[in-house]
Amino acid sequence: MVIPINISKMTFTPLPPSAIKQAHNRIAPYIRRTPLMESSLLNNMLGHDIIFKVEGFQKIGAFKFRGALNALLSLKEKGELPKEVVTFSSGNHAQGVALAGKLLGVNTTILMTQSSSPIKQQATRSYGANLITTPTRQEAEAKTKELAEQGAYFIHPFDNDMVIAGQGTACLEALEDGVKPNAIFGTCGGGGWLSGTYLASRLLAPDSLVFAGEPLNANDASQSYKTGNIVKFENAPKSIADGALSLCLSPRTFHYLKQLNGFYEVTEEEIIYWTQWLSHLLKTTVEPSSAVAMAAAHKWLKTQKTRQRVLVMLSGGNVAPETYRMVWENNYLDRLPGI
Amino acid sequence: MVIPINISKMTFTPLPPSAIKQAHNRIAPYIRRTPLMESSLLNNMLGHDIIFKVEGFQKIGAFKFRGALNALLSLKEKGELPKEVVTFSSGNHAQGVALAGKLLGVNTTILMTQSSSPIKQQATRSYGANLITTPTRQEAEAKTKELAEQGAYFIHPFDNDMVIAGQGTACLEALEDGVKPNAIFGTCGGGGWLSGTYLASRLLAPDSLVFAGEPLNANDASQSYKTGNIVKFENAPKSIADGALSLCLSPRTFHYLKQLNGFYEVTEEEIIYWTQWLSHLLKTTVEPSSAVAMAAAHKWLKTQKTRQRVLVMLSGGNVAPETYRMVWENNYLDRLPGI
Repeated sequence: MVIPINISKMTFTPLPPSAIKQAHNRIAPYIRRTPLMESSLLNNMLGHDIIFKVEGFQKIGAFKFRGALNALLSLKEKGELPKEVVTFSSGNHAQGVALAGKLLGVNTTILMTQSSSPIKQQATRSYGANLITTPTRQEAEAKTKELAEQGAYFIHPFDNDMVIAGQGTACLEALEDGVKPNAIFGTCGGGGWLSGTYLASRLLAPDSLVFAGEPLNANDASQSYKTGNIVKFENAPKSIADGALSLCLSPRTFHYLKQLNGFYEVTEEEIIYWTQWLSHLLKTTVEPSSAVAMAAAHKWLKTQKTRQRVLVMLSGGNVAPETYRMVWENNYLDRLPGI
Repeated sequence: MVIPINISKMTFTPLPPSAIKQAHNRIAPYIRRTPLMESSLLNNMLGHDIIFKVEGFQKIGAFKFRGALNALLSLKEKGELPKEVVTFSSGNHAQGVALAGKLLGVNTTILMTQSSSPIKQQATRSYGANLITTPTRQEAEAKTKELAEQGAYFIHPFDNDMVIAGQGTACLEALEDGVKPNAIFGTCGGGGWLSGTYLASRLLAPDSLVFAGEPLNANDASQSYKTGNIVKFENAPKSIADGALSLCLSPRTFHYLKQLNGFYEVTEEEIIYWTQWLSHLLKTTVEPSSAVAMAAAHKWLKTQKTRQRVLVMLSGGNVAPETYRMVWENNYLDRLPGI
């Protein structure tokens, strides 16, 4: 099922935490400073203070715009703005790249599989991207590589310093806005979001713990964390948290994730439970990938003897109709979230 | 199916538009000033500017807190704050009264039918209300009357000047926050929300048109508007817009609603369509009753030859799991909302 990867020969220079602030200065004029939210009902039920950073209100409905935009603006700063950008993604990264390209007048080509959600295809096109669909992910990756070899700049969804720095600006905003957490929780896909979050925390909340949540069904990063070696899924894992299905971390993101305080693996039922409850309590659309972070926070809070203040990073609010159907098939709102 | 009601003998003094500003001064320290939202994607698709006032972010998740709180604070101002308050409601009004009572230290008793959503029962209890469930609505009303006769103050969900004035503060905020609409749209249930909205518009946007949306399946107010007489459903109408199911207007709310510029009756499919699209575009939970107003706005916008700016009042974001299931049973997000 999983393959350990030898990373001893790979090298790169880690980002300093200040890279997150630089990224924020760069992208701030173009992004939304998303709100913090809190539910007094939830705080009462759990006996802790849970503050949410809600990236569903970011442009394109997810944090991914931050990283893609920082990547392009960084290139522009260096006088290296490409004419063409390419990436493959069936999710929020596609829309992030498409919108960043549109803002900077760069042509974007997005590769998706034909089975990708029609909503996401339509949203990507609406930002002006050239969308190419292929029967398989392998073909999408091959076509991306081909276009990159012809000169298009490939924005990797997570294995890119400037993407990582951009993703970290969400946590930076939360900490600048006054959250003083004992612990910070985020969802682990390829690790870009959590790498940036970790760096932002080192800059502004160096005493805060940082934890990852990951679907049990897609626990490559958690296994990597535990074994000290990157492990990779041979085939795409299945989880309702469709933003957390990467096959493996990159050596770059693994470098930061090794430094976290722990990983929590959460079941599909726990993900759906918290998707329902967060939608109910916060009145925002919460994609299951976002709920993974709350499910992890809940597991940690249950082990705490004194009242804790946690920052839960909600990655986005793009939910496909078929996902809504799965989320609401059973009713979990009649089971209170106690501790 | 419907019964005309002779209202010629009923009299009352209409509220001046300034009552809305007075209500807002009264309740402002306790309520949330809810956000305005806009979707550039929607504006592009429709060729008009649609600004949403999002009461899903109000305390209790709907505008109903405004009216209930204004009613109690008005009584307090006059030195007539009751010790006990009673109402019957299976919806957001129950929670509005419960929270308003809690804030002012007034005991509240809420009558609901046993079939009311467990979520709403639980939320009402969580605000400290004494909840009594009865097998039928008739019994709930009878018990309410009995408690009122024993001295409890009955806060009617719409047939109450101070409730109407409170509900109007949402539109007042939107207009104070700079929206300059050509037309304003709200959903019609018992008419309190729209009566207050109409009054607020007379104060701050006297040239704006004001329209009501109502489910075709629950079109008593629309029929009343067209015939000039209040018509009443003999039995509770059925619609997924569960906040718009009142049997009839009161003479008080009919007085204001007669002055609107029109009513639009919308089908269940149109309600579900806009519930899906507004959830998708705004990333907030949208109850079907809220989507009724957008469905009405869409019908009006289709008749316009020049670009219009409309204010759509979204009443709330409390969605029961069984309602979510109905909303997402079919996928309407693959049908773009054009004009």
